[in-house]
Amino acid sequence: MLKIALAQIEIIPGRPDLNTKTMFAQIEQARQQQMQMIIFPEMSIPGYFLGDTWEQITFLKDCEEYGQQIIESSTDICIIFGNIAMDWTKVNDDGRIRKYNACFIAYQGKLLGNDNFPYPFRIKTLQPNYREFDDERHFYSLRKLAIELELNVNQLLQPVTINIANKQLKLGCLLCEDGWSDDYAVKPIIALQQNGPVDLFVNISSSPYTIGKNNKRNRIFSAQVTKVNTPLVYVNNTGIQNNGKTIYTFDGCSTVYNRKGEIIEYCPGFSSSLTCIDLHLTTDHVKSSSTTPNDDRNISTIYQSLAYGTKYFLDSIGLKKVVIGASGGIDSAVSAALYTQILGPDNVLLVNMPSIYNSKTTQNLSAKLAQNLGCLYTIMPIQEVVDYTIQQLGNAPIVDLKSGKEQQLKISPFVIENIQARDRSSRILAGVAAAFGAGFTCNANKSEMTVGYSTLYGDQGGFLAALSDLWKYQIYELAIFLNTTIYKKEVIPQEIINLVPSAELSFEQSVDEGKGDPIIYPYHDYLFKAFMEHWNRRTPEDILLWYEQGVLEEKIGCQPGLVATLFSTPDEFITDLEKWWKLYTGMAVAKRIQAPPVLAVSRRAYGFDHREAQNRTYFTINYQKLREKLLLKAK
Amino acid sequence: MLKIALAQIEIIPGRPDLNTKTMFAQIEQARQQQMQMIIFPEMSIPGYFLGDTWEQITFLKDCEEYGQQIIESSTDICIIFGNIAMDWTKVNDDGRIRKYNACFIAYQGKLLGNDNFPYPFRIKTLQPNYREFDDERHFYSLRKLAIELELNVNQLLQPVTINIANKQLKLGCLLCEDGWSDDYAVKPIIALQQNGPVDLFVNISSSPYTIGKNNKRNRIFSAQVTKVNTPLVYVNNTGIQNNGKTIYTFDGCSTVYNRKGEIIEYCPGFSSSLTCIDLHLTTDHVKSSSTTPNDDRNISTIYQSLAYGTKYFLDSIGLKKVVIGASGGIDSAVSAALYTQILGPDNVLLVNMPSIYNSKTTQNLSAKLAQNLGCLYTIMPIQEVVDYTIQQLGNAPIVDLKSGKEQQLKISPFVIENIQARDRSSRILAGVAAAFGAGFTCNANKSEMTVGYSTLYGDQGGFLAALSDLWKYQIYELAIFLNTTIYKKEVIPQEIINLVPSAELSFEQSVDEGKGDPIIYPYHDYLFKAFMEHWNRRTPEDILLWYEQGVLEEKIGCQPGLVATLFSTPDEFITDLEKWWKLYTGMAVAKRIQAPPVLAVSRRAYGFDHREAQNRTYFTINYQKLREKLLLKAK
Repeated sequence: MLKIALAQIEIIPGRPDLNTKTMFAQIEQARQQQMQMIIFPEMSIPGYFLGDTWEQITFLKDCEEYGQQIIESSTDICIIFGNIAMDWTKVNDDGRIRKYNACFIAYQGKLLGNDNFPYPFRIKTLQPNYREFDDERHFYSLRKLAIELELNVNQLLQPVTINIANKQLKLGCLLCEDGWSDDYAVKPIIALQQNGPVDLFVNISSSPYTIGKNNKRNRIFSAQVTKVNTPLVYVNNTGIQNNGKTIYTFDGCSTVYNRKGEIIEYCPGFSSSLTCIDLHLTTDHVKSSSTTPNDDRNISTIYQSLAYGTKYFLDSIGLKKVVIGASGGIDSAVSAALYTQILGPDNVLLVNMPSIYNSKTTQNLSAKLAQNLGCLYTIMPIQEVVDYTIQQLGNAPIVDLKSGKEQQLKISPFVIENIQARDRSSRILAGVAAAFGAGFTCNANKSEMTVGYSTLYGDQGGFLAALSDLWKYQIYELAIFLNTTIYKKEVIPQEIINLVPSAELSFEQSVDEGKGDPIIYPYHDYLFKAFMEHWNRRTPEDILLWYEQGVLEEKIGCQPGLVATLFSTPDEFITDLEKWWKLYTGMAVAKRIQAPPVLAVSRRAYGFDHREAQNRTYFTINYQKLREKLLLKAK
Repeated sequence: MLKIALAQIEIIPGRPDLNTKTMFAQIEQARQQQMQMIIFPEMSIPGYFLGDTWEQITFLKDCEEYGQQIIESSTDICIIFGNIAMDWTKVNDDGRIRKYNACFIAYQGKLLGNDNFPYPFRIKTLQPNYREFDDERHFYSLRKLAIELELNVNQLLQPVTINIANKQLKLGCLLCEDGWSDDYAVKPIIALQQNGPVDLFVNISSSPYTIGKNNKRNRIFSAQVTKVNTPLVYVNNTGIQNNGKTIYTFDGCSTVYNRKGEIIEYCPGFSSSLTCIDLHLTTDHVKSSSTTPNDDRNISTIYQSLAYGTKYFLDSIGLKKVVIGASGGIDSAVSAALYTQILGPDNVLLVNMPSIYNSKTTQNLSAKLAQNLGCLYTIMPIQEVVDYTIQQLGNAPIVDLKSGKEQQLKISPFVIENIQARDRSSRILAGVAAAFGAGFTCNANKSEMTVGYSTLYGDQGGFLAALSDLWKYQIYELAIFLNTTIYKKEVIPQEIINLVPSAELSFEQSVDEGKGDPIIYPYHDYLFKAFMEHWNRRTPEDILLWYEQGVLEEKIGCQPGLVATLFSTPDEFITDLEKWWKLYTGMAVAKRIQAPPVLAVSRRAYGFDHREAQNRTYFTINYQKLREKLLLKAK
């Protein structure tokens, strides 16, 4: 039997001082509970998403120093923790100092494991470079070390031997991705077991929340554990970390699997905790019913991640108040309800900014929303400055200084739409936020972000786009969830949920006449999802082929029969498809480059998990052939 | 003797159709000149910086199809080209289809090289993951393949045998980074030579311009070539490619080195060309004087890169006109002179936007600049709307909907400064640009970007930050270069060059009284450079240590003796240091997340080459000790 503490701590990225302090407190607590071993997450001292801070030598030295302090405190308890490990005598491929993403096993004031390995720590073997991860940029993997040492990597996957209470224990140390080896040629868990046998596997992770990821992890880890017939302890951190453009929440959900692959302990999501267990290494634990993990795809978990991420992000940048442009539409309403829940009504200021195009309907709904939430409210009309701007821009003489000739600018209706959007955000909201000591929010959803249905320096501005990883249908789900489960009353007026989505920037977008956005969310949400969220990203070629085959709705996941009701001819379908593809790969890219950080929940969020270049739109050879064929057939 | 054509082509990223067309034209031209071999750059069919477009199966299939067309056209000429190579039976580490960054050698309609290698192409061995590169995210390296096949990677570095004109030739194929192996455990050129001997090395590259890079390449490649005593042909592309946040120019500068490492052919920079040579493989070429490469660190090459990059970026997004906010200061003046040179004066509209804080001096200088350039000019004052905004924001009742109480916002002088900046960019310039069918420029320099000395949705906005990779001292160099060398007359008035840099957002920033920016460029340019541009990034600990040791100016490169004249006590020095460090790692990160794309020229530009997280500021242990020591000593 082994007394193990799972230290599911909040890691503050880039603050080894604060993280070490947290770790000391947890070690002390584990000690008081007579634990023999405490396990911290991956990169528990420095944090994981630090951008190029890894290139600061002085920062690395601090991580080493704080790590040393942790090692020294391991007198009577075995401490397993993640940290950056330097080999100052070697370099990475980029010529900078050699850095490993490492797992340290400290006991009796010393590091273990260099009896059968070149270093007194273990090195991450499989380094993710997909999604938001950049491991190869910073860390030298065990695979590279094997090449350098001219060894087979499997030879290097050696367990760490530790003597606790006069018993010898062989530990198999895995770092995060090492446990997700399905697509890799190297299988760390198998190699470790062959070089053992291993008594206990430990996987220290720093793994962000993603819809459906824990479900998948439990399937994969259970299957692996069953194969090697050895228990596994998985420890993940909480808190938030970001890559600039994209913010990730870490949900913890640390888990203990018995040798049968059953979950015998499941730590709470989005909450720091020290969980102490007595682990029988040789007999089987019984699975208890209380340890069944939640389905992490449901709206309740998504809300938990959003609220947690938003709160922690506000804390991290020191914001206590927000200003929200409240149009009377669904996105700003959900945003207002979310922030009010996090900050309290006194710290949320809703600003309604009507022009002549805004209906009484939405103005009233905006006031009703504020009333329901009990937050601060003000109305600041934009029409006067919009009119002034149209006059000023249209009347100022543009002088050709070579000829002396003068001309004037023509202000089109489209230009006037964008003038309104920028007036609201850049003139009013940004000014109000500064005066109120707040940040103003970006309320854009993922469908809008996909095709750039927003105005730069207008509604696309803000300090955070908390809802930009949710498709419009998820925004509605969230609205209902906020009313029914969080507030337990109708804070978001049902009329807002029922209203046609509209920007109200012209009389062509009148909500009272049922006119609204050009995006037909019940179809386009799913089309856009296929473009950007599918693991193999879909292009017009895939879409058109599925359309031709009559399987489009099934393939992209929207309501059966919907496409035929929207487009009566292939021509209409193709025109729509090409319009959005051009926007997604064109102007929307330019807008996203200047978009606020996005709070990620999905398998692919905009920003660092959707790397993109501002390139020209491309249609494939087969798309063009298929297009011709369908258009010809239709004639 | 081998007749080789170096096809230094412009590659359009993401457009295999257009690139293949370019290649066919070059092949035809080489054929007409009786060439036996034509060499194209790395990734000549798809382009290189494509973000996650690599995850579109349909795109990959097109690249394969276009590659096949090129192969088929190799009937009478050997064609060496770069393309993505798929193995549809295997997967990458991320579970997506296996992709190699490959070099294809086609002759007589067939691919060569699979007699001694698993594939009929060669695979990049060393994949850069530093700076702007993300190779490991997308491509499976030869190093990984070696692990998968359980072979030593050196065994896989086999030359390709080709029979041309009844002679057998052993080709050593390198892809870009393979030639920069100094910091890697694997040395492809040496392994290839040992598995040969090789008659000719070919390095196909897609290598962006960076100040000083060609100088370094020529040193490194010459040294390597000398070691293996074999000639090397380096072919690089032209054009521009981007990673969203950062735009890179590709200068070509394809080079032929003889076996002694001497340069015997040097293709022009920033210009597409087909260079045909007769290469003697066994006798030595004489180095001709005309092939001496330029020093690529001088302002003339920097200007060339900026003008080329700006022009090609405008073309790629279809912009033919720009609007520039002309303040009468140096940054906007240099911007105006640069764009006027590229687009012609009729397509450049300068807008002067005075408030009560703008001096007659700068207003007159702005008009004089426009006059000198002969471009379009207009004046649109902002004071009325700024005053209206201050009134509107300050007078609107902010209602607490719980208590019914009302309050009003206090508009501080700092808030008013930012209102002005946003009014100029978001209200006027964005509107004018839309009406004029143009984009408006961001004129920020690198020092401002470093510490966020700019207003979001204000002077930080724009479609492109063409000068944001230049420190202020380089802006001045460029101003003088534009006057003396490009325009050959004083288009940028000397008074603008002489003027104290100032934002003129308050009476505290009066240029006529010599008051200006809080950034003291002759020192801070170099301090900021140490923070962000040094290969190992410097932190306050390094800076303070150098200050204590009296070697700061020498270490960071500013004028000797300067620091003592600026700061009379350690306290003053430390206050200044901490202020900028906090901004650089704090608010400036938030601003950069929403900044326009930057045109890169330096060894590290903001954006994709300066990955950063919006984290809390950190001061190291030793910094804090040293700080205490110096402050105590000073007392």
